[in-house]
Amino acid sequence: MKLLNRFAALMLAATALSAPALADGLVDNVDGVTLDEKGRPERFTGILIDKDGTITRVLGRKDKRPEKLDWRTDMKGRVVMPGMIDGHGHFMELGFKALSLDLSDTKSFEEAKAKIAAYAAANPNRPWITGGGWNQEKWGLGRFPTAAELDAIVPGKPVWLDRVDGHAAWANSAAMKAAGVTAKSVAPTGGRIEKGPGGAPSGVFVDAAMALVAKAVPAAPPRERNAAFLEAQRILLSNGITATADMGTSLDDWLTYRYMGDRNLLRIHIMSYANSVETAVRVGVSGPTPWLYNDRLRMGGIKLYLDGALGSRGAWLKAPYADAPGQTGLPLQTDTQLLNQMSRGAMDGFQLAVHAIGDRANAEVLNAIEELSGSYTGDRRWRIEHAQIVDPADLPRFGRNGVVASMQPVHQTSDRVMAETRLGAQRLAGAYAWKSIAATGARVAFGSDYPVESPNPFAGWAAGFTRQDAEGQPFGGWRPEEALTREAAWRAFTIDAAYAGFAEKKLGRIAPGMRADFIVVDRDPTMAAPAELRATRVLETWVNGEKVWVEGQRALPVPEGGTAPAPVAAAPVAAAPVEPGR
Amino acid sequence: MKLLNRFAALMLAATALSAPALADGLVDNVDGVTLDEKGRPERFTGILIDKDGTITRVLGRKDKRPEKLDWRTDMKGRVVMPGMIDGHGHFMELGFKALSLDLSDTKSFEEAKAKIAAYAAANPNRPWITGGGWNQEKWGLGRFPTAAELDAIVPGKPVWLDRVDGHAAWANSAAMKAAGVTAKSVAPTGGRIEKGPGGAPSGVFVDAAMALVAKAVPAAPPRERNAAFLEAQRILLSNGITATADMGTSLDDWLTYRYMGDRNLLRIHIMSYANSVETAVRVGVSGPTPWLYNDRLRMGGIKLYLDGALGSRGAWLKAPYADAPGQTGLPLQTDTQLLNQMSRGAMDGFQLAVHAIGDRANAEVLNAIEELSGSYTGDRRWRIEHAQIVDPADLPRFGRNGVVASMQPVHQTSDRVMAETRLGAQRLAGAYAWKSIAATGARVAFGSDYPVESPNPFAGWAAGFTRQDAEGQPFGGWRPEEALTREAAWRAFTIDAAYAGFAEKKLGRIAPGMRADFIVVDRDPTMAAPAELRATRVLETWVNGEKVWVEGQRALPVPEGGTAPAPVAAAPVAAAPVEPGR
Repeated sequence: MKLLNRFAALMLAATALSAPALADGLVDNVDGVTLDEKGRPERFTGILIDKDGTITRVLGRKDKRPEKLDWRTDMKGRVVMPGMIDGHGHFMELGFKALSLDLSDTKSFEEAKAKIAAYAAANPNRPWITGGGWNQEKWGLGRFPTAAELDAIVPGKPVWLDRVDGHAAWANSAAMKAAGVTAKSVAPTGGRIEKGPGGAPSGVFVDAAMALVAKAVPAAPPRERNAAFLEAQRILLSNGITATADMGTSLDDWLTYRYMGDRNLLRIHIMSYANSVETAVRVGVSGPTPWLYNDRLRMGGIKLYLDGALGSRGAWLKAPYADAPGQTGLPLQTDTQLLNQMSRGAMDGFQLAVHAIGDRANAEVLNAIEELSGSYTGDRRWRIEHAQIVDPADLPRFGRNGVVASMQPVHQTSDRVMAETRLGAQRLAGAYAWKSIAATGARVAFGSDYPVESPNPFAGWAAGFTRQDAEGQPFGGWRPEEALTREAAWRAFTIDAAYAGFAEKKLGRIAPGMRADFIVVDRDPTMAAPAELRATRVLETWVNGEKVWVEGQRALPVPEGGTAPAPVAAAPVAAAPVEPGR
Repeated sequence: MKLLNRFAALMLAATALSAPALADGLVDNVDGVTLDEKGRPERFTGILIDKDGTITRVLGRKDKRPEKLDWRTDMKGRVVMPGMIDGHGHFMELGFKALSLDLSDTKSFEEAKAKIAAYAAANPNRPWITGGGWNQEKWGLGRFPTAAELDAIVPGKPVWLDRVDGHAAWANSAAMKAAGVTAKSVAPTGGRIEKGPGGAPSGVFVDAAMALVAKAVPAAPPRERNAAFLEAQRILLSNGITATADMGTSLDDWLTYRYMGDRNLLRIHIMSYANSVETAVRVGVSGPTPWLYNDRLRMGGIKLYLDGALGSRGAWLKAPYADAPGQTGLPLQTDTQLLNQMSRGAMDGFQLAVHAIGDRANAEVLNAIEELSGSYTGDRRWRIEHAQIVDPADLPRFGRNGVVASMQPVHQTSDRVMAETRLGAQRLAGAYAWKSIAATGARVAFGSDYPVESPNPFAGWAAGFTRQDAEGQPFGGWRPEEALTREAAWRAFTIDAAYAGFAEKKLGRIAPGMRADFIVVDRDPTMAAPAELRATRVLETWVNGEKVWVEGQRALPVPEGGTAPAPVAAAPVAAAPVEPGR
């Protein structure tokens, strides 16, 4: 029988080798930490992954490793944690912004001009040069720049560059010509056209007047959309983000995601929220799409807007702005319009995610949710996006109605001075009230609102439990009573950001049955001081059991014209085949 | 060693059983006939199919059947042949037409009114009742019907019904109201509004005046699109069509196909041609999409139009119409516009398919192809759709330029009397010239142009080698010198229709490496007399190795609101598991 046994072993080995479908891969020798189902940290040393990219087992130090494996990666004791999830971002905008001209780091006009010239030379196929970040004060220019100065650098094609604050933009003559702007053009209410000596537009357009030129900027062609997609995906993966909500997917955004999925270039998980009921129904017809491309894409909901932002006093408040008596902001739609849209979406089973920043806007969305909850029962997970300023009287309504508060910790640190000015001290009780909202039993999902803020989730996580900015300001944190614990803030960037997208059974933790989404980092996030946590370096990012990003390596092939590009290798880059039985 | 050998055999058997990926299914005991690579009939008795739905072997009577099988279906000697391929159809239009009200078989006004009432009652959710096929002559009415008569049947919602010839349509008051038509409405040039006693519109609109009401008919909502899709798919599969070109896919059509593919409801193979360069580029960006859903869907090309149809004298002729001196028809775009569009599409690697019916239109498309062939080399397979009337001097240009002539045999039988009137006897030499075009070395792909004609491919096949209609008229065939052989006409509905869509390596024959697309029919199509061939009954239709339609059985689940419907079973319905070793 000895011969037979030996033969049997050989046959089994051969079977294991020839039938990868039945075998696992192992990521071993990790210093692993995840949250368990209840949000408690849990350590581990190995992850077993099946060929579909799902975790089959999480191993402790003493657990025996399987002998039959397709591949094995030795992490040499490095820290491994779940991929981070951004609960609120704008995927394509992130990519478009990254591909556009960035002048935010220019310290002189000469440096800016050189950068503009270099960008124009590097991008000969772009019909328009767009971008922004300029600041004539930082340049020490003492005046706005002019169209003539841009013409000297880029004479032939339109250039249109936003000022750093987004409240002005700078055009060259080709851009003004393309937009039909002349000396006779009149600035709309709330806007100003800067004039030159002869009364002709000098090239800078302020506030509402920016639209005069902006309307002429052409929509990005599909190839440019592809480039923007790949850049956004690279940025997110490099930040350790393995899944993201996309808040406001247009039909063309959707076509881009499908283009990438069809060609095996989609790596990150995208929880898509359509930019309108119409888009949702054209794509999903009678409800969310299935999860597509191995759980990498799903259109599950609809993003709506009820008000604007606090900075521009567009947020809709119950009482007037402290710094603008008589102004309360304005709703972007009537309550009937909002109800109708939410109802149309909910009728088809789409999740509703409504932007509400001011306390009046939040109260109105909560009213709508309460009104609709009678008709649309079941697990709805109504979302309020931002939920920045909430009347303390309205807070319990989040928990009572199972509303997901989709919040962005870095907005709090960026906005705090402005928010105090806009609201006055007495209205801050329900402002960025993460802990109070969580205390009502509601889920708080964290995100970054990229590209408005950086997508770096470690900055968000640190802000989430310190209420301090990157400089550690203010000392002790801003209204620190609203800080979450370190674990709760982590949970909001993983488990609850997944929950907010109906994905908590697939994403957010390292556990059996979940997608093998994890990151290798250079420090232990459960131990690092806040400033250290912010500085976390992501070394590797894995999605669905595949290594999709490595520090210092430009990732992901760019599709070329006419043919489908070669798919990214399905096997992990660094995985070495393992001899069976060892 | 005997023991070892026996053990090895057992292990191998176990391996085969536990790894279905390695095993095949068998369709056995068939009276099979296909065309070989060169278009010659070839008999067989069994088809081995792998789990992906690809044919691995075609077996003859004497070939030994494998012992290890996942499933086996005994066809009990029935005739099995390749699925038919329609080289030119309008998929969604077929479904919409099938779902609309059909009055073409009504013999009296009373019968028509009853049918309208029944349809309205059966379709309470349709915002408009649309359809057509009425003929007041056939009813013996001696006048047009009126809006008031329609109001008496369907008072509340708009009704809009085309006359059988498409040159008039009948509205009720609600439709006229929705369209804003009043007594003051003026008919456009080329149109007429029928008037009642008081001068008010009586309800019938002729020719160009039809647009006054037609413009108000709302676009079909996505749910209705889904229903139309499923109905079209059912009709095609029931006709034995396993693959079809879709000539003019809109973006919403594409979203419908993806909806179906994502939910495993897409069964037929669709070779999609976008309805514009813009649609193609939005979907494919830089070229054709990959084959999706196991080769069931691909957007590979773009459909363009150069002229209209012969019946309405829209076909663009070199010399005036015989029955309308001074008229030569009109191109729908200039040669520069056509060249620009073809060039934009070809630059990205899309296949171009241009509608050309008149001899001038055909010559102009051939000019464009010759001009572009210098820049766009390689395997382009330029297509001319219909190619009905070709100047004999232009015929060799098809072969010389590798142009695919996409033709519809039933158009010839439907059009012949009209064509003789429009063209006169001397211009028929290049009319519906299948054999002459094929003789130039060009590929002739056959289709039906459904829903303009019935999609029944057996009618098309029979016409293809007889040049006779369903009544056997005219005796001996119309210009029978242009008939193909029975085998060549079959080939045009299989091998060459696949070739026309760049799919000849996947579709069109029963051979190893091809998709397991076949139909079970009630007679041998290589033996049947033409009238018998037309009457062929399709008993079963299989696509990708799955039985997707059975005679007498309503097929395919209809998706329900909110959730993805259960996928159609992947295993063949009638397949019985087979014991290994038997």
